Amino acid sequence: FSSTTPITATLFPGDGIGPEIAESVKQVFKAADVPVEWEEHYVGTGIDPRTQSFLTWESLESVRRNRVGLKGPMATPIGKGHRSLNLTLRKELNLYANVRPCYSLPGYKTRYDDVNLVTIRENTEGEYSGLEHQVVRGVVESLKIITRTASLRVAEYAFHYAKANGRERVSAIHKANIMQKTDGLFLKCCREVAVKYPEITYEEVIIDNCCMMLVKNPALFDVLVMPNLYGDIISDLCAGLVGGLGLTPSCNIGEGGIALAEAVHGSAPDIAGKNMANPTALLLSSVMMLRHLNITDKADRIQNAIINTIAEGKHRTADLGGSSSTTNFTNAICDNL
Amino acid sequence: FSSTTPITATLFPGDGIGPEIAESVKQVFKAADVPVEWEEHYVGTGIDPRTQSFLTWESLESVRRNRVGLKGPMATPIGKGHRSLNLTLRKELNLYANVRPCYSLPGYKTRYDDVNLVTIRENTEGEYSGLEHQVVRGVVESLKIITRTASLRVAEYAFHYAKANGRERVSAIHKANIMQKTDGLFLKCCREVAVKYPEITYEEVIIDNCCMMLVKNPALFDVLVMPNLYGDIISDLCAGLVGGLGLTPSCNIGEGGIALAEAVHGSAPDIAGKNMANPTALLLSSVMMLRHLNITDKADRIQNAIINTIAEGKHRTADLGGSSSTTNFTNAICDNL
Ligand SMILES: CC(C)[C@H](C(=O)O)[C@@H](O)C(=O)O
Ligand SMILES: CC(C)[C@H](C(=O)O)[C@@H](O)C(=O)O
Repeated sequence: FSSTTPITATLFPGDGIGPEIAESVKQVFKAADVPVEWEEHYVGTGIDPRTQSFLTWESLESVRRNRVGLKGPMATPIGKGHRSLNLTLRKELNLYANVRPCYSLPGYKTRYDDVNLVTIRENTEGEYSGLEHQVVRGVVESLKIITRTASLRVAEYAFHYAKANGRERVSAIHKANIMQKTDGLFLKCCREVAVKYPEITYEEVIIDNCCMMLVKNPALFDVLVMPNLYGDIISDLCAGLVGGLGLTPSCNIGEGGIALAEAVHGSAPDIAGKNMANPTALLLSSVMMLRHLNITDKADRIQNAIINTIAEGKHRTADLGGSSSTTNFTNAICDNL
Repeated sequence: FSSTTPITATLFPGDGIGPEIAESVKQVFKAADVPVEWEEHYVGTGIDPRTQSFLTWESLESVRRNRVGLKGPMATPIGKGHRSLNLTLRKELNLYANVRPCYSLPGYKTRYDDVNLVTIRENTEGEYSGLEHQVVRGVVESLKIITRTASLRVAEYAFHYAKANGRERVSAIHKANIMQKTDGLFLKCCREVAVKYPEITYEEVIIDNCCMMLVKNPALFDVLVMPNLYGDIISDLCAGLVGGLGLTPSCNIGEGGIALAEAVHGSAPDIAGKNMANPTALLLSSVMMLRHLNITDKADRIQNAIINTIAEGKHRTADLGGSSSTTNFTNAICDNL
């Protein structure tokens, strides 16, 4: 990557506080001279029949073309006949791995100061198959689907990530003592990949035990890989250890190298438009996008500026106990670049 | 209940450290003059064809006859052709609700000092159906089953428990935004029961958000009721908040009023027979058994003695950072009665 070639990235500011925190990212990128041009797409006002959701076909085409994007919170409009925005994105772009680094932020005190782990969630199957039916009155069933293809794919990604990021251990999280066939297949795939990475320690941890150990001693963990629902649960638990979804970034990796970085918190309609939102999760997600693009120098600079601004404690948004506006906080980050 | 009528209860000391911690319960009950006579049953050495497991038919008959029992850890022997001991007990005795109170122990410091909640887990269905199959090579599925009968039953139990124990709130934990039919039915049943308890506040919390809130602020929760797998995960998470499974009791409630109190930790074969095990979880479980029998005075006395002994800190077993033997710790509890 040469820093003179501008890269086009899709930007979904999203709803609620989305546009304000997206503005913050744009400002910081400009201040840091990041060679990214944004192609902005908003959630549509009606159902696009080609996506069966409020996401426009053009916005998906934009990510497919640019292969990289950043996404703010999107609240799925209530009503029938359309699909959840988040699930549509995962499905249509085949975003198979959701990567969520989770580390203690110096200066922002929680009960834990020793968290530094990454959850890697299979993002396309498991309990999210959408397959459910009533068997007889009063008896319903949901299908959890596990495939060899998706399990190998996410396991490969997890070990590749661990190696590329100097991590030492991958823990596969499962409940194969109960779901021997589905979680059993997931583990089998992880083991197959593990043997190709002798330098990475591989272990298997049952999900209930994993949650207990995470709250007792999160420093035991490094990279965790798991099926969809466990990933949903454990990534939020881990975010809670360091302060919540307002502070933790994520990035979705898709087939063919697509990367859609994403703030996974809600759209907070109650504070939307009030210049109060904390842009940290989206900013740190944009840093993940830069790392994916190998723009490492800018990624480091921006990440350090965010962390230092929070650590200084002079400019904090209301959710962190301060009284800074989104703009003040963003300006402080730019000053720290 | 008149304190002159002795009650017969089944005791499964279990494996590993099981017999030592069961000895501790027997000693404390004797010292507190508890009118319970134990009928002891051990895990068999071969498969009983009538239970398809190493549990003997006679032991199950004993619980069915006595309607009350206490169970230590049981490690399922490895091999094919038999069922897990724990799952066999749940199934054969129709133990539909697993109740796990979880509270901070004064004197035993963890990162949390404000935990006082109870998880009530549906114990018979959901992902534990045992129904799994390969659809085609590399594609497997597990069935999650939710029934109206089991959901109503556990919801009724949770609200009944909340009311009987002066609790103010019941939170139903779910992922109905994804599993609309199965978790949707579970929520529908909870709502039906909730309207019959206007004095109890009812709320619904999505499992990922619940886990985040539990690690950030467990004081937000009171009684939590949920399907099987979520219960497995969240009850262990909560145990972790206050120190782990060695300190938290549980009681399984079965159809027809059977109660099987149970220490849910492992059998710790590495320290078995060394007089090192911590009997707290089994002792506190035996207290739950006494409460179920309405032997409240003895239950209070024993519970206070356990809590005070831990709080004093003079006699602690190795897992709590002390060097007391199981016997010393038990003697200290008896002294504190
Ligand atoms: C909003 C919801 C459908 C989604 C999920 O369950 O995956 C969310 O919790 C997440 O983690 O992105
Ligand atoms: C041992 C295992 C089958 C069991 C479960 O998953 O229910 C355990 O974790 C529990 O919580 O009792």
